[in-house]
Amino acid sequence: MTEATPNVDMEKLVSLCRRRGFVFPSSEIYGGLSSSWDYGPLGVELKRNIKEAWWRAVIRERDDMVGLDTSILMNRKVWEASGHLERMVDPLVECKNCHQRWRADELGEPKCPSCGGDLTEERMFNVMFKTFAGPVEEEASVVYLRPETAQGIFVNFQNVLNTTRKRLPFGIAQIGKSFRNEITTGNFIFRSREFEQMEIEYFIKPGTDEEWFEYWLKERLQWYVTHGIKREHLDTYEHPEEKLAHYAKRCCDVIYKFPMGWAELEGIANRGDYDLKQHTAVSGKSLEYYDAATNEHFIPYVIEPSAGVDRSALAFLADAYTEEPDKDELRVLLRFHPDIAPLKVAVLPLSRKENLAAYARDVYADLRREWRVEFDDTQSIGRRYRRQDEIGTPFCVTVDFQSLEDNRVTIRERDTMNQIRVPISELKTTLSAKLGGEDLFVLPPGGEIWKVEKEADSA
Amino acid sequence: MTEATPNVDMEKLVSLCRRRGFVFPSSEIYGGLSSSWDYGPLGVELKRNIKEAWWRAVIRERDDMVGLDTSILMNRKVWEASGHLERMVDPLVECKNCHQRWRADELGEPKCPSCGGDLTEERMFNVMFKTFAGPVEEEASVVYLRPETAQGIFVNFQNVLNTTRKRLPFGIAQIGKSFRNEITTGNFIFRSREFEQMEIEYFIKPGTDEEWFEYWLKERLQWYVTHGIKREHLDTYEHPEEKLAHYAKRCCDVIYKFPMGWAELEGIANRGDYDLKQHTAVSGKSLEYYDAATNEHFIPYVIEPSAGVDRSALAFLADAYTEEPDKDELRVLLRFHPDIAPLKVAVLPLSRKENLAAYARDVYADLRREWRVEFDDTQSIGRRYRRQDEIGTPFCVTVDFQSLEDNRVTIRERDTMNQIRVPISELKTTLSAKLGGEDLFVLPPGGEIWKVEKEADSA
Repeated sequence: MTEATPNVDMEKLVSLCRRRGFVFPSSEIYGGLSSSWDYGPLGVELKRNIKEAWWRAVIRERDDMVGLDTSILMNRKVWEASGHLERMVDPLVECKNCHQRWRADELGEPKCPSCGGDLTEERMFNVMFKTFAGPVEEEASVVYLRPETAQGIFVNFQNVLNTTRKRLPFGIAQIGKSFRNEITTGNFIFRSREFEQMEIEYFIKPGTDEEWFEYWLKERLQWYVTHGIKREHLDTYEHPEEKLAHYAKRCCDVIYKFPMGWAELEGIANRGDYDLKQHTAVSGKSLEYYDAATNEHFIPYVIEPSAGVDRSALAFLADAYTEEPDKDELRVLLRFHPDIAPLKVAVLPLSRKENLAAYARDVYADLRREWRVEFDDTQSIGRRYRRQDEIGTPFCVTVDFQSLEDNRVTIRERDTMNQIRVPISELKTTLSAKLGGEDLFVLPPGGEIWKVEKEADSA
Repeated sequence: MTEATPNVDMEKLVSLCRRRGFVFPSSEIYGGLSSSWDYGPLGVELKRNIKEAWWRAVIRERDDMVGLDTSILMNRKVWEASGHLERMVDPLVECKNCHQRWRADELGEPKCPSCGGDLTEERMFNVMFKTFAGPVEEEASVVYLRPETAQGIFVNFQNVLNTTRKRLPFGIAQIGKSFRNEITTGNFIFRSREFEQMEIEYFIKPGTDEEWFEYWLKERLQWYVTHGIKREHLDTYEHPEEKLAHYAKRCCDVIYKFPMGWAELEGIANRGDYDLKQHTAVSGKSLEYYDAATNEHFIPYVIEPSAGVDRSALAFLADAYTEEPDKDELRVLLRFHPDIAPLKVAVLPLSRKENLAAYARDVYADLRREWRVEFDDTQSIGRRYRRQDEIGTPFCVTVDFQSLEDNRVTIRERDTMNQIRVPISELKTTLSAKLGGEDLFVLPPGGEIWKVEKEADSA
């Protein structure tokens, strides 16, 4: 067994994503829109699976969490109170010669990195997208596209308390689009102006924040490992105190070894009571919590694990990418965790002959009631296995002429290429168990080991 | 059995939604933002279920559909080509006296409906939200928030063809936020400036469009019925030819009897080849389809079933709302279809006594691995049943002292209030079957009918 190549460069990944329908440049026929991306038929399923796995882990399987879905356009007082209007600014400079624009704090020396020209004085630039609600473009109708989903949670804190009877510690989580008018974007879907967040605001008693911070850091790091990211490609990065965002008491990132280097995958922040206090002050509405046990009123602290759907997708793609020498060829496969894989199963009839095709179609129709399944009857079986490997489908079900006689089909595993043969009546249960992580060679009644790849001599 | 009240007025529904955490006014602590809404802990689950049911029906269980997830910010040439820049305009007038603004085409007479004042001349107002990508507010950097998800599909038509090998007829579907700067909004979540769409673009051979139009109209209407909307609350409305949108050859709405009256739930449009033709002309990139069987190149026609997530949510809420006289009280319940219900099961221990609570917690922990489940041990059992009725939970599982001895629990059905008692080992399978639509009185091994409500004499 040859060791798989551990890494992938960005170019290769972007090319696969585009070729197989994971990610396309947005508005491509019009020359695109800077750092804007569309998710194709496989990409949308990948993203859905990531979001679903997150929702299940942080909400459905927990006792202390509820979800929320707040709007992108909010009253702009929200951003006055949160400090984003004043402080979410980047220092901008422009080259006097070629007119390219740069973030002053990212430049090594005061010369244009592109042409060496002189730069203008820096001016502060707010990264919130501004628009107007209502028909007149006037100051009074300015609204912003939210730069984070978090504030939608804070301003609803009291609403959630009133309607759910949750007691501390408890969390509110939401998934949604946010927008930042970044001067510098790039690295494929890693940083774009429009992105999707998965944010948790976990409310706790002041004084318990350090312990909950550690809890969530560990919990969130583990989530990536559970869903297939290699532990050695993950690390943590503690933000130095002088570089913390205006709302943060502490911030530690879960970082991932992306194709372009180590970078933030998720940020865990201790926001203290900053946000609830600010909203209380500016709105005049109390966002206090009453603890009946101790008869205390106080503003809770909050720990915020904030993840990006797009950069999670990039991490899952990069980490799954594998090249293996296979006979005279190179086998490319995406070793996705079954929960993350866009397709769970492919049904492949060995031939297009009428009776075989009909049998395979029945198998397909039955399986897709449970999972996202593909049917493929083109080209040689070897080529079709490679197609499924390259998009990360964990299992192929092959229907051959013998199936018509013995009502048995072959299950082929993506990672090992090993195969077992099972009665059709056991197929669904077996696939269900394998997708849940059971070893391929645990056989159902009537099942048998069919082909062990390392002993096989042809593809 | 008393006949359920068939309808609900908007005020009652808004009040329930707010009280129980379905929908809150957005940015409420700051006085809100006109017609902007946030979905609370139950609302977000309701919306997720609607989207999931749609995705399953239109993509996963079909052979001829793929998904897509395109960005909200697109190159503005998209909107030049689609005609939205020029034609997505409303006639705006302003009252010279009180300065309120109105849509001229919605006014009966040329006087302000609010104060009777004189109105200004009408001017055309584009309903697309405008913003700037990049740090300078200049004409060249103008981008729009998409007013429909459809165009993201059309501009990716060739990308999808190339990566999926789909052949006509086939469809592309997506769910996502769209934005329209409406002058007139209102009717709760029925019409807001920010809303979520579920759109299908179904590509077909020209000449087969009428037949596919009828197919999708029937299919989509049936989807609502399958998921619990009463057939008699649904109808269709054919748009008169002179009122069709600029891209449409025909348009027929699925309309629903909302609390405020009959209104559009979903629009089915025959967009012909308008969009693909326009994008071909403006981008210079061919969006033709090659039919290998007939050796023809042509631009496909498209049928578009376009649904709103928010107004679907409103329809599901309104249709589920029921009031029933029950003893001396009024029982309020939401008769959601199990697939749509935010919570599937509630686990209710009869008392908080230690051993009973622990047993019930175990049942709860086990069930929530499968479904969204709530645990509730407050107040009397009767009050807890009413709580679950009011949020539409299809089944309650009651754990009593006898459960500790005989390992059996009670399943109580929301709509009939009937109860069966089943061995704990059969609970998951039984609930799964009931949530799938099986009659409550089909009993698992060892199960028995426990309480038939119409024969019972106390709550």
